[in-house]
Amino acid sequence: MTTAQRVLKMGMVGGGIGAFIGAVHRTAAMLDGGVRLVAGCLSSTPDRAHESGRALGLDPRRNYPTWEKMIEGELALPPQERVDFISIVTPNHVHFPVALACVRAGINVVCDKPLVHTSEQASQLISEVCSSGVVFAVTYNYSGYPLVKEARDLVARGELGRVRKVIVEYNQGWLASRLEAGGQKQADWRTDPARSGAGGAIGDIGSHAEHLAAYVTGLELTDICADLTTFVEGRHLDDDANLLLRFSGGAKGVLVASQIEIGHENDLRLRVFGDAASLDWRQEEPNALILRPQGQPERVLRRGNDYLGQAAKDASRLPSGHPEAFFEAFANVYRNACRAIRAGVGGLDAPSAFDFPGVMEGARGVHFIEKTVQSARSDRKWTDARFSPAL
Amino acid sequence: MTTAQRVLKMGMVGGGIGAFIGAVHRTAAMLDGGVRLVAGCLSSTPDRAHESGRALGLDPRRNYPTWEKMIEGELALPPQERVDFISIVTPNHVHFPVALACVRAGINVVCDKPLVHTSEQASQLISEVCSSGVVFAVTYNYSGYPLVKEARDLVARGELGRVRKVIVEYNQGWLASRLEAGGQKQADWRTDPARSGAGGAIGDIGSHAEHLAAYVTGLELTDICADLTTFVEGRHLDDDANLLLRFSGGAKGVLVASQIEIGHENDLRLRVFGDAASLDWRQEEPNALILRPQGQPERVLRRGNDYLGQAAKDASRLPSGHPEAFFEAFANVYRNACRAIRAGVGGLDAPSAFDFPGVMEGARGVHFIEKTVQSARSDRKWTDARFSPAL
Amino acid sequence: MTTAQRVLKMGMVGGGIGAFIGAVHRTAAMLDGGVRLVAGCLSSTPDRAHESGRALGLDPRRNYPTWEKMIEGELALPPQERVDFISIVTPNHVHFPVALACVRAGINVVCDKPLVHTSEQASQLISEVCSSGVVFAVTYNYSGYPLVKEARDLVARGELGRVRKVIVEYNQGWLASRLEAGGQKQADWRTDPARSGAGGAIGDIGSHAEHLAAYVTGLELTDICADLTTFVEGRHLDDDANLLLRFSGGAKGVLVASQIEIGHENDLRLRVFGDAASLDWRQEEPNALILRPQGQPERVLRRGNDYLGQAAKDASRLPSGHPEAFFEAFANVYRNACRAIRAGVGGLDAPSAFDFPGVMEGARGVHFIEKTVQSARSDRKWTDARFSPAL
Amino acid sequence: MTTAQRVLKMGMVGGGIGAFIGAVHRTAAMLDGGVRLVAGCLSSTPDRAHESGRALGLDPRRNYPTWEKMIEGELALPPQERVDFISIVTPNHVHFPVALACVRAGINVVCDKPLVHTSEQASQLISEVCSSGVVFAVTYNYSGYPLVKEARDLVARGELGRVRKVIVEYNQGWLASRLEAGGQKQADWRTDPARSGAGGAIGDIGSHAEHLAAYVTGLELTDICADLTTFVEGRHLDDDANLLLRFSGGAKGVLVASQIEIGHENDLRLRVFGDAASLDWRQEEPNALILRPQGQPERVLRRGNDYLGQAAKDASRLPSGHPEAFFEAFANVYRNACRAIRAGVGGLDAPSAFDFPGVMEGARGVHFIEKTVQSARSDRKWTDARFSPAL
Repeated sequence: MTTAQRVLKMGMVGGGIGAFIGAVHRTAAMLDGGVRLVAGCLSSTPDRAHESGRALGLDPRRNYPTWEKMIEGELALPPQERVDFISIVTPNHVHFPVALACVRAGINVVCDKPLVHTSEQASQLISEVCSSGVVFAVTYNYSGYPLVKEARDLVARGELGRVRKVIVEYNQGWLASRLEAGGQKQADWRTDPARSGAGGAIGDIGSHAEHLAAYVTGLELTDICADLTTFVEGRHLDDDANLLLRFSGGAKGVLVASQIEIGHENDLRLRVFGDAASLDWRQEEPNALILRPQGQPERVLRRGNDYLGQAAKDASRLPSGHPEAFFEAFANVYRNACRAIRAGVGGLDAPSAFDFPGVMEGARGVHFIEKTVQSARSDRKWTDARFSPAL
Repeated sequence: MTTAQRVLKMGMVGGGIGAFIGAVHRTAAMLDGGVRLVAGCLSSTPDRAHESGRALGLDPRRNYPTWEKMIEGELALPPQERVDFISIVTPNHVHFPVALACVRAGINVVCDKPLVHTSEQASQLISEVCSSGVVFAVTYNYSGYPLVKEARDLVARGELGRVRKVIVEYNQGWLASRLEAGGQKQADWRTDPARSGAGGAIGDIGSHAEHLAAYVTGLELTDICADLTTFVEGRHLDDDANLLLRFSGGAKGVLVASQIEIGHENDLRLRVFGDAASLDWRQEEPNALILRPQGQPERVLRRGNDYLGQAAKDASRLPSGHPEAFFEAFANVYRNACRAIRAGVGGLDAPSAFDFPGVMEGARGVHFIEKTVQSARSDRKWTDARFSPAL
Repeated sequence: MTTAQRVLKMGMVGGGIGAFIGAVHRTAAMLDGGVRLVAGCLSSTPDRAHESGRALGLDPRRNYPTWEKMIEGELALPPQERVDFISIVTPNHVHFPVALACVRAGINVVCDKPLVHTSEQASQLISEVCSSGVVFAVTYNYSGYPLVKEARDLVARGELGRVRKVIVEYNQGWLASRLEAGGQKQADWRTDPARSGAGGAIGDIGSHAEHLAAYVTGLELTDICADLTTFVEGRHLDDDANLLLRFSGGAKGVLVASQIEIGHENDLRLRVFGDAASLDWRQEEPNALILRPQGQPERVLRRGNDYLGQAAKDASRLPSGHPEAFFEAFANVYRNACRAIRAGVGGLDAPSAFDFPGVMEGARGVHFIEKTVQSARSDRKWTDARFSPAL
Repeated sequence: MTTAQRVLKMGMVGGGIGAFIGAVHRTAAMLDGGVRLVAGCLSSTPDRAHESGRALGLDPRRNYPTWEKMIEGELALPPQERVDFISIVTPNHVHFPVALACVRAGINVVCDKPLVHTSEQASQLISEVCSSGVVFAVTYNYSGYPLVKEARDLVARGELGRVRKVIVEYNQGWLASRLEAGGQKQADWRTDPARSGAGGAIGDIGSHAEHLAAYVTGLELTDICADLTTFVEGRHLDDDANLLLRFSGGAKGVLVASQIEIGHENDLRLRVFGDAASLDWRQEEPNALILRPQGQPERVLRRGNDYLGQAAKDASRLPSGHPEAFFEAFANVYRNACRAIRAGVGGLDAPSAFDFPGVMEGARGVHFIEKTVQSARSDRKWTDARFSPAL
């Protein structure tokens, strides 16, 4: 709390009654008091949208029945009343049309991941963001953890030496049985190719793993070798993914993303091995980062301490020992995107300037999912996974 | 998000620029969107109060220079505009006059702990709350953790059998050197008897330990034997407290509260041993509760799972594996107090009816601090620590 | 200590001054007082062999200069004085000739792993063991841990349901730099193809991982996809191995074996995921086994408790909480092999009857190493890894 | 294995069929091949003694029916055939007469703890050891762990600064119910004052805690305040002990020793807090020692690494990551006592010269138990616990 910052006006598409991630976005966006929800189209069903907006206390005039009406309605308002950005928290298949319309309308966007269904859609979004210059953030929320930022800084500063190997795992067990058959809403759309896209586990959580590894190491993925499995009978998408990875510069890796590993809840873990030290971080105990320098005792770095770098400090809200967790990391993505919005800096450079995942990272994730599915169908060991969008 | 709830209007005394706990209270109170900050007197220095209120975007008319003016100003507003409650987040010595004035004015209160400096003040508050019927909450925030509520339920359901022993530790190291000499604001007032009260570590964190043990076990403390030490030269209050405890019914215990234990950050741990099972919980890894039934494998209960009881479920916001932490627990104290406020149910019974710590628990904490200081000065082994306020 | 058992007479080839694993074998073999070292050829250099034997107090007549002399000398003794078995603890390339000679001479063998260099050698050993009927044990020592045996029992009893996935990791970092260049003896021969065989990390530790997974799950490996890397410049064998696995019955898997993962010491971890529960075990904390049944709290099974199965109990020496570790597990391989020797039961069936790894498991390990090297050189994703020795 | 060392001849009193600790002593003593069991009186019942000795393969002439006969018989042998030392592993009440007789006969002794029942007995032993000059070791086995030795070195080197506080806990749960009523042999004598002595939990495990704290910190205990409880009905000795401690120089402490804490197995933990750093060690994960320097990341020191001090290295047998545990630590007490025996250095100075617990430490433990019982019965807060044996 230093100086008054402008409170931003948020609109939301999706996230109505019964949804999970919408409430997370709202809590995260508003955690620091810098954002206010002023408009929404919270469900694809107008009645449900209306009811959801009422429950959240939306002004009835800005509680829209369709996202098209919402964009139209907001554009009709004087600029100072209009939403500063729109969060898209629908099932995946709705991301593209809404995002495209927002960007074209010059409205800043925060979109859940995976960004869209196809690389073509992603490329189109990239070029539209490029020309419109809006701020476009993709909620790879795990990169918002302070100690993930510390990990990235340690790699960047050379504390690990040259990176040789990356093991990234996203272990879950919640889809070990056919939950979707019982009508569980989250399971339902996530296992439906029409709404979820070409990837099941690889799309829902594998894309987080891909982003986390890239965010921390800065390495470019060049080749992958994937084995995708659907263990649960009757399911239409993979629920288990195991990949070998190769990076430019010679680093190797393993990526595991599974939703049938009973007993693992949301066990995202990243290990990076350099020739001078290694690091180890787990999302379920996010306040600790283990650094293991060769020949020295392992060090446990804890959030909130003076010995951490600036990025980790800036991303913290509480003193050490007062644990922070999921919401705060998610909020950090919003906070940084909002800084860009307040600064009026958008387009393709804003993400690195303000440290949030942008449309380019979102597109890379879509590419990764496509390549994984392609590799899984191939008899050849290696599939080229280089990401080079035409700009 | 089910049905629209009334958004409550919060006022705040203390918590201005440079404060720590005020920002925590604001974030916690507003986490679920059910509270809005509308008024404040955020510092004891009018200029700083004003500046702090501006930074938070307060309406200038409700950005008060003194807490007396604030109470006066709010009472002058029409009831539907007036604050629904006032949070008192000042250094300890200011709690009493503000709380007393609020209660007498019929304004609901959320007050930080320890409640006040003396048992006399505490008794007076109790009787005033009794007669005014306001909601009065004391932020023993650790009782807001879902798995602390589960622990309490396990004890209450008899899963542990008869409780024999309690070990509660609040280990910290941040005051291992004379931080207050360097002007660190938090250290400064916490080590000053005039502002902090008779207890140092025992007041600041020992009182949390006392509350946590009582909340989970429901046992009445009957006798204590305390050893208080000031390790850091030049300090005026204890920075280390070790106690033997006796409870009604024959249970025994140990309480450790220290701020000189280097390397411990905010390491509050509770172990309860019954004749059928034991449990173990640590604040720094709050999403796990260990239950150890005799003769069976240890069980690790994790937040967000179906096998937990209703209280733990109600206190959760995220699925399992998506860690929750300090803010959410703190927010749960606010949420439950706000439920009482919305329901219009106050007085001495509201805390147990709505599951939040009230003025009685606050008074018990003050009593505990006093008795600890008394025991520490005594040559006798046991000091009667029974709490029986005249009502 | 129930009834007196016959103390067996051990001979040893290898394991002289400066060796590591020889001393482990001796301590393990003699841990329970059931074995005595009576003969040895402890080094390939006669002088060093002699000096090593003296230091161990060997009878000078049985302190042999060459292993050939040792076999000859022992055979010349009356049967009741002769060694009951010979332990082969030399670098890998010496295993084959010594083992072959022992088996042909009708002497029981305990041989370190990997068994031999080639599948041809392994097949020959199998058929010789088959015809001679000697006891032949291979020290896949990690299968000796009580909780590994419990894990195997849990799978066999169906507690996990149908096994879907196996993740086995053997993470080490000790060869992250070119230790062999500095003359470190262990590093020297392990990185030399002539003495170590076709596999580096995959042979030295990957074969342990393969055995552990097979031992616990009983699943047959059908296909592998391997990426082998030599990270340390100038090294002649792989120091990092990552594999995708497929098992008969549809289970999938991942195997990681690395010696360049700085900070990991001897971090062998096995996770097995069924459709009803999963389990998790780590060699560095071997007294705990985590069982995670679907929808229930995770259970931590600890060695030495009544709730464990018979195999785990039989393999324990100490009460719970008094940790057991590496030596005791190693000793369990010896103990069970010695039981077979005392019972006079050898040949190919003895290993499963007495629960120790035999020549067949040793041969399967050699096959696995060969197939991994083959897969690593192949552009095809999957390499058939089925093991079906002609008998 | 460097040069041949003289194999010592061990005799044993106690430790027959059905005993627990006798087998531990044998395994520990013989772990490194430097000791051989040659004589015994393994039970107080001659038949059982005989049967036990046969099971261990003792020479019938040295399988004695009584300990008196054993001492007599051994003294009658030529010195080079005679036992080099006798291990006393009986229930506590037998320690004194056997130890006294051995010392007077000039036979070296390794005795289990607590040493004897009374301070008078202990004083007598001290003066007899003083005059006879035998080696006398007491198996405070936890001081044998390599990382306990490292902890002691860290304190001695000043890495912790001035020690302010010690928390030592020995948490067990195995006597949470009345096991002794069911004839469990270990529980039976340990809860019987005639055989166990004045202390129950405080004697059996509290004395280990006392020794560990003293061994690591070197601090002299000056005052104690004890609360002893017998939770299990019908039991005659304490099964739970909680103490406040004061040390010379101003350090404070807490000691917990309990056998009713369900779920704790053998959970001995030591924390030492200095004004510069703190350390934390747990017996159940003995291969890690946590060092927490003020203002720096916590460091996890692991056994077997080059960065450790000489004492920790000398006490290790395996490389890092290959866990060592209970037997090895126990064996280290034997190994060091045997070094003294081989060197022919006994009396009161040998323990510190060769780093093993001696008669003086044993006597201090007896004094500690007596003082704890005295404090528990006193209404005064502090009981003088200074140990100053008249020599």
